[in-house]
Order: sequence, then structure tokens, then C-alpha cells
Amino acid sequence: MMKTRGCCASICQCFFEYSTPKILVIRSFKVGTLNRITQALVIAYVIGYVCVLNKGYQDTDAVLSSVTTKVKGIALTNTSDLGLRIWDVADYVIPPQEENSFFVLTNLLITLNQTQSHCPEVRHFFKLILYLTSDHLPSGVQTGKCVKYSAVDKTCEVLAWCPLELDKEPPNPPMLADAENFTVLIKNSIRYPKFNFNKRNILPYVNKTYLEQCVFNRITDPDCPIFRLKDMVTEANEDFQTMAVHGGVMGVQIRWECDLDMPSSWCVPRYTFRRLDNKDPVNNVAPGYNFRFAKYYKNGNNEETRTLIKGFGIRFDVIVFGQAGKFNIVPTLLNVGTGLALLGLVNIVLLSHAVCVVVMATVYIC
Amino acid sequence: MMKTRGCCASICQCFFEYSTPKILVIRSFKVGTLNRITQALVIAYVIGYVCVLNKGYQDTDAVLSSVTTKVKGIALTNTSDLGLRIWDVADYVIPPQEENSFFVLTNLLITLNQTQSHCPEVRHFFKLILYLTSDHLPSGVQTGKCVKYSAVDKTCEVLAWCPLELDKEPPNPPMLADAENFTVLIKNSIRYPKFNFNKRNILPYVNKTYLEQCVFNRITDPDCPIFRLKDMVTEANEDFQTMAVHGGVMGVQIRWECDLDMPSSWCVPRYTFRRLDNKDPVNNVAPGYNFRFAKYYKNGNNEETRTLIKGFGIRFDVIVFGQAGKFNIVPTLLNVGTGLALLGLVNIVLLSHAVCVVVMATVYIC
Amino acid sequence: MMKTRGCCASICQCFFEYSTPKILVIRSFKVGTLNRITQALVIAYVIGYVCVLNKGYQDTDAVLSSVTTKVKGIALTNTSDLGLRIWDVADYVIPPQEENSFFVLTNLLITLNQTQSHCPEVRHFFKLILYLTSDHLPSGVQTGKCVKYSAVDKTCEVLAWCPLELDKEPPNPPMLADAENFTVLIKNSIRYPKFNFNKRNILPYVNKTYLEQCVFNRITDPDCPIFRLKDMVTEANEDFQTMAVHGGVMGVQIRWECDLDMPSSWCVPRYTFRRLDNKDPVNNVAPGYNFRFAKYYKNGNNEETRTLIKGFGIRFDVIVFGQAGKFNIVPTLLNVGTGLALLGLVNIVLLSHAVCVVVMATVYIC
Repeated sequence: MMKTRGCCASICQCFFEYSTPKILVIRSFKVGTLNRITQALVIAYVIGYVCVLNKGYQDTDAVLSSVTTKVKGIALTNTSDLGLRIWDVADYVIPPQEENSFFVLTNLLITLNQTQSHCPEVRHFFKLILYLTSDHLPSGVQTGKCVKYSAVDKTCEVLAWCPLELDKEPPNPPMLADAENFTVLIKNSIRYPKFNFNKRNILPYVNKTYLEQCVFNRITDPDCPIFRLKDMVTEANEDFQTMAVHGGVMGVQIRWECDLDMPSSWCVPRYTFRRLDNKDPVNNVAPGYNFRFAKYYKNGNNEETRTLIKGFGIRFDVIVFGQAGKFNIVPTLLNVGTGLALLGLVNIVLLSHAVCVVVMATVYIC
Repeated sequence: MMKTRGCCASICQCFFEYSTPKILVIRSFKVGTLNRITQALVIAYVIGYVCVLNKGYQDTDAVLSSVTTKVKGIALTNTSDLGLRIWDVADYVIPPQEENSFFVLTNLLITLNQTQSHCPEVRHFFKLILYLTSDHLPSGVQTGKCVKYSAVDKTCEVLAWCPLELDKEPPNPPMLADAENFTVLIKNSIRYPKFNFNKRNILPYVNKTYLEQCVFNRITDPDCPIFRLKDMVTEANEDFQTMAVHGGVMGVQIRWECDLDMPSSWCVPRYTFRRLDNKDPVNNVAPGYNFRFAKYYKNGNNEETRTLIKGFGIRFDVIVFGQAGKFNIVPTLLNVGTGLALLGLVNIVLLSHAVCVVVMATVYIC
Repeated sequence: MMKTRGCCASICQCFFEYSTPKILVIRSFKVGTLNRITQALVIAYVIGYVCVLNKGYQDTDAVLSSVTTKVKGIALTNTSDLGLRIWDVADYVIPPQEENSFFVLTNLLITLNQTQSHCPEVRHFFKLILYLTSDHLPSGVQTGKCVKYSAVDKTCEVLAWCPLELDKEPPNPPMLADAENFTVLIKNSIRYPKFNFNKRNILPYVNKTYLEQCVFNRITDPDCPIFRLKDMVTEANEDFQTMAVHGGVMGVQIRWECDLDMPSSWCVPRYTFRRLDNKDPVNNVAPGYNFRFAKYYKNGNNEETRTLIKGFGIRFDVIVFGQAGKFNIVPTLLNVGTGLALLGLVNIVLLSHAVCVVVMATVYIC
């Protein structure tokens, strides 16, 4: 009974005890100054760099995004094959809709009225061209026969879509040179799921009338979501007409860097444009961007014919990135805790001074 | 010799020394209680919030995902242009396959038998309609002539795909109103590369027979990967028939939040549905989702004709996100270390009490 | 005046003070060894694991990527429906371009000359086949009439694209068996925006001549960005011809794990290949990958006909992932600070020894 009470008392006593190290106060101008400077540096680092610059007190989330695009404009071409011809959106955007990307045809090599039949293989007189385009492919299966290719020349016969596509350079200037004046409306809606925050790139104060006639300009119209193709290419320090000949890939980067501790109106998209493919012909193969597609027809005899198009053009990839930060107690305490631990460095710096003395003394003794 | 031994002895002695601060034990009910409460708070924070709620002991990885979709269903339309017509998957899914997305045509404006020729520009009697659709484009290149548009009216002649598309509102109710009953099978396979963990949204206990007749329902069939289009739109608090008129973009969000310290069968997908575009006509331009595409034909004279379709419809973007966590010693020690550093706060809290006294004393002296 | 000077003096004195705990040095082999071992473990952990293995001194960034692909090759098929036929890129890549993915047709079921008309529904004699393909859909709207399906059988008449597609298994071996020798050039350009670092998968020392004839091989040509389709499937431990029958989804994973403190030439892509869909027929529905698309024609009477193709094939998803690390003072100090805090564990370990003694003493008293 006595013992239990003694035990309880002992535990209670223990509970209300507070242990603190006995402190030795050193009054020294040198040590004191060193101490305060080190402390100041650590505190300045924690507050200035971690908290203010790196926003260490914030929890972060990556962006979820949805993009729709709508291209507008018409182009006029005049070639011997096709005559005078108008190209509208349904003609030059292929495929007609994609998720985060759109392709605008700027140049093309067209092979009309191909049928599945036999024809002589194309003879490459100019090996140099073949080498430069690096795009030569067997276009059919050889039948084993040899036939006249021209008045003076014979080549192997192939089973293929005939007549074969001629392996030549794309027209320069590009056929759809007018494409530089096409405009594209990019609608981007983003979400930070962790913070349940949604926003669109059409900002709240932008009205309908403005949207119907504006064109993006970094200085005068930085919030207009309608971009002229040439402007985007120019911002990436490229020449549209040169790029249009062989095609290419452009990145339309939309950066949403949002500090959600601030008013949500401060969270706005920043547009930048960059060429993504490598135009440099060195260390490269098939520079530019092109692909082949066909339109299939049936003629009067129910025979299938097709128009083969090797389409060169610019693919615009809309790349949405960025992160949002919002105050959260966990990263804050993580950073404060680390800062406190770093304050411990102060002692080490000063003790190292003492250690030096001890080591020197030891050496002296030895 | 003696000296070396002394030196060694000295270093050895130093190595086996343990320095600990001299502890001053304060027996005070007030200070002791404050001490224990602060300690309890810090420990509760570290264990409760960081470890249990935020899983600070886990290393995390972001999801890699692959999605395939397959839409099923047929729709019947009856218009003066096209007569009675059946629409199947090959007709209404455009393009036929995409990576993380699929588009279902729900409404359309069709312009039949366009050819490259000359025709009078469309006169917009109703400026209001033009304003509301905000989708007016020059459809061709002006030839400079003026021609009769109607019995009483003349407009400029253009070279274009003629006849021109009429700039009118899409039909309401939508032409493919039956689309609400289409179903889509969404197959999603995910991977957490850091943990070499793979999973599919067809869960192991779901069998073939069930999959062939089930339809997703949040209460009765939460694991069925087959979704009725109308159900998805309804879950996003939208009306399918209204949305179908002008089209829109729906987000099918699949969230894989996986605690890989738990049985892998606990790691299951959660489906949520959200409208991603802005249907609000205020601060907006061209609300809804539509694009133009064409089917190209050749008539008897080998002349190219096309059917231009302005297709309105719902694009479903499958957005897969989430992260997996698994125990890892690095973040654990990071959090424990920080917690220990925070325990140092206890001393600061108590010392601040002492500092108060000192400051007051200083002030008093001053 | 006196007081102010006294106050100032007091504050100055305070500023130059350095407080350090009075240290008690324990000279004990046991305690000392325990102390040093614990310290060594913590330091080894911080330096070895956090800094060297996990690169805790680095700030990290996720990759932004752009991918273009170009498939080459021709295939020959010989069927009763189509006769001898050549398939080239424009025929078998559908849609002709996508952002991070490409689809190669390997097998198909073709239904020629469909028109919008009335025809008898297809009778499924073999329920087993229906069950296995699990792909049966109503193909039209019933008119209510019953008509002859075959000499001995009647079925319901439907309004549909007639003749209806027969619900049968795809050909085995696959029609485009030659697809295994197709090659694809994958161009991948990446960017780490935080570090302003760009790189391409065509490495600087790879020249044009090499690129024109190389094919990726993990041992002999690990840097060649041209892949034979069969090689990719084989690396994923699948058989191309088997996979080609019903189609499937392949992941082409490009991993960019870059330590930007090292020379940038060390930052190279690693290619791995994995089958993403589930080929296992158990717990699955519609295994493989297929979709329906159509080619639309107009016959002499301006009537629309179409060729419906149920295309089976392999979709290759190019998945680019990885992260870059570069030295940054914030994570470094975060880890050092945590390490220092963990050194505090040493005292706890040793004090726990002392606590044991105290507790035992308490118990003894009790």
C-alpha cells in the first residue's frame, strides 16, 4: 500500500519534471559574433530561400488539362495537277480532331488516280536527291519482268499502287503558303485535383466581342487565346515559309504556375512557343514532318482508285504543365524542423573550434 | 615511442568518450505540464498527421497508363437531305481510334455535293445568328464579280467548295439523339514503374459473363468498365440531350490511389465524370465542341466532290491519375528526423518563458 | 541617460554571449562504443543511402516530351474478296498521324459494297463463336418484317448498312503477316523545363548514313531509333504472328533518367517494350485490339456505298518517362538537417539505457 503510493508519487514526480541542460554562457566577442552570424545565415536561408523563394510552406499538385483547338482560314493553290483550288479546314486539318494536338497541311506531293496494277519501278537518276530525302522505299512487289520505263530505259515491273509516287523534293515555296495567316483558337481548361481548383485560359474579364476579333500578341493582347500560325512560329525564332516546305513540330507550351494562397485571378496561363523537332540536317534523317495518306474512290467499273498525298505540315503539340502550391502545415513543419536542425550546425561550427584546440594539444603532447 | 603510445592512448580515450550535456532537472508543476503538453502535441502531430494521414513513411510514384475504348450502339436519323439513315460505329466515331480519347457524333450540319467552283457568297440576313455562333469564316476567295444570290439580292462571287455551307444553328433536338444509349467499354491498364506494379480496371474477380451484360452503376455495378454515355453525362450534372446539340468535352477521370503496403486487391480505380468545357455563353466563344470534316468522292467525270459535315458531338477524354505509396526508409527517417527537430521546439517554448523574464528585467533596469 | 547606456550595454552583452550546454564526459568503453556505432550508422545512412543512392542533394524535374513516328514497309495479301493487293503506309496506318501513338493494321474483316437498305439479320448458328468474340451488336433497326435469310431459314428484316457484317473470327494466319518486317522510325525530343535542358533520342554521334540503314538491336545497335515491329513484340515476350491475329496494344517505353551533374552525354534514352493489353481470355472481354472504320464511295446513281473494315492491329503507345536531377542547395540542406536531427537519436538510444535503470529502480522501490 505504502509502496504503491510511493510508486505513483514517483511516476507523478517524473511526469512533472522538466529536464534542461545546464547552460554555460561564454562571454566572448569572437565566439559570440561567430555564433550570431551563423545563426543569422541559417535563419536567413530558412526564411529567405526555402520559405519565400521556394515556397517550402506549400503543398504542391500537378496540373490536369483538357485542350480543344479550332483552326480557321482558307488557302488557294494553283498547280498543273489540280488547277485552281481552294483548301479549307476540312481539307488541311488531318485527322479532323485530336486530343492535344493539331496538324496543318502546308505542302504536299500528290499522286493522282493510283490503282492496284503493274507498272515499272521508278528509276532514280539522281542518287543525291534520294540520299537527301532518305525516304526511298520499295513501293511494290517485283513481278520478275522487265518493262520500258522511258524511251531509252528499262526497269523492273512491280505490283503496286500505280502510277508510283515520284520520289522528289516538295515544292518550294510551299503550296499552302497562305497557311501563315490561319488562326487557331486554343481552349484549355485545367484542374488541380488536390485543391479542387479549376480554371480556363479564357479569363473571366475577357468578353465575347473581344474574343471574336482578337489575335494573340505578347504585348498588346497577351490574354487572347487565338493565335496566328505565323506568329507562333516566329516567336520560336523560325521562319514560317521555310518551315512549311518540309514541315515540322511546334510546341505550344501553356504554363500554369499558380500560388493558390494568392487571389485566384493571379493564376494565369503563360504561352511560349518552341520548335520541337530538329531541323538541322546533320545527325538527322528525314528532317521535317510528313506522312502519307490517301483518299479512296471507286470508278465506274467499281474499281478502287486512290489519290496518294505525301503531306508536309506543321504539327502543333499543346503541352500544358505547371504546378499549384497552397499553404499546408506538413511541408511547413518539415522545413521549419529542418531549419532548427541546421541551427544545430552552429554548435558544430563552434565546437570544431574547440576540437581544433584539443587536437593541437593532443599533437603537442604526442 | 612513449609519445606515440601516449598519442594513441589519447585518441583511444577520445574514441571511447561519450559526451552528454549536464542535465538540470526542474521540478515544477507548471513548467513540467507545459513541457509534457508540448511534447504530446509534437508527437501526436508526427504520428497522427504525418505518418497516418499523409503517409509520410511512404515513397510515392506517379501512374503510367494505357487506355483503349470501344463504343457500341446504333442511331436512326430521318432528315429531308439524307432520308432514313442508320448510323453505326464506323459512321459516328471520328477518327476511328485515338489514344486516350474518343469522339461520338451527336449532331451535324451536312452540305452535300460540294465541288470546287464559283458561287455567290452567303448573305447573312440575321446578324444575330452570326453573332451567336461566332463561327463565320470567309469560305472562299472573291473573284471580283457580283452575282444573283436570290431573286432580289446580289452578293459577291467566290471561288470555293460550292454550294457553300449555310451558317445556321445545329438541329435541336440533336440528330443522333439515340447516342444517349450508346455504351463504351473502357479498358485501362496502369503501371507504377518504381514499384513494378501493374493492374487493369477489369478486376480479377470480374468474369466474362458479367462483362458481357453489365453497365456501370455507382451503386449496383461500381466495377463494370462499360459505361452508358447518358449515365456519364448525368453524373456530371449535365443533360445529355442539351449537351448533344452543340457538343462538349467530358472528362472520364480514373483515379488510382494505391497504398501498396496493403493487399493489392485494395488498389482499385475510382471513376468520376466532369464536364471539361465551358457551356456558359458568357465570356465564351463558340461554346460546345464541333469540327468540320469531309468525305471525298469522284463523280462520273472524274471530278472531285465532297460531303462537308460540321459535326457536333461529345469528346470523352479519359484522364488517368493517382499515385502509389509504399514504405521506404528514406521518407520515414526524413519525417522522424524532422519530428525530432520539432521536439526541440519544446525547449524554445519554455526558454521563451525565461527570455520574457529576462527582457522584462532588462526593461526594468533600463 | 545612465539607464539607456546600461540597457544598451546589457543588450550588447547579450548579443555577444554564446550559450553552450555544460558537457559531461563519460569515459566508458561500453557507452562510448555504443555512441560511436550509432553515430557511424546514422552518418553512413545519410551519406551512403540518402546522398549517393537516392541523390538526396538533387532537385528533380519531370520530363516533357514530343514524339513523331514514321512507319515503312509494304505487305501483300491475296484473298478471294480483294484479289492480289499491295498495302502501303497510307493503307495500314490509321489514322495517318497521331501524337504519341501509331496503329498498324495486321488483320481485317472486310464487308464490301454496303448501302443503306433493308436486309435479313444475320443468324448466329454458332453461339459459341458469338460467345467467344463477345462482340455481337444489333447492326440495324428492325422493320418488323420477316424475310428469307437462306434457303431454309427466315430472320427479321433490318434497316442497316447491307449486306451486314458477318460475325466471324479474324483470319488466322493474319492477312498482313508481312507487317512483322515493317520498321518504324521514332523521333523523340525531350525537355526538362526546370533545368532548361533539351535532348533528342538521335544522339549527337549518330550520323545520317548510319541512320539510313540501321535497325535497333539491344546488343549491336542500342542507339538506333529505327525499330522492326517484330523485334519490339519479341522483346515483350510475345509472338508477333499470334498477336497480329486479334491485335493488341504495345508500350514502347522510353526512359530518360538523367543526372545533370554528370556530362550531358550520359543522359541517354533506354528503350523497353511491354504488352499493355491483357491477352488472357479469362476475366476479359473482346481481347486484342480492333476497331471498325469505313471508306465511303458514291456509285453511278449518286448513291452512297461504303466498305466496312473491322481492323485488327497493334497500337504502339510511345510512353516517355523519367526524371532529371541536378544539385540544389534546398534538398541538400533538407537532407543534412534531417541527418543531424537523426544524430539526436544517439542520445535517445543511450538515454533509454539510463531510463531502463531508473524504471527498474522505481519498480524496485514500488
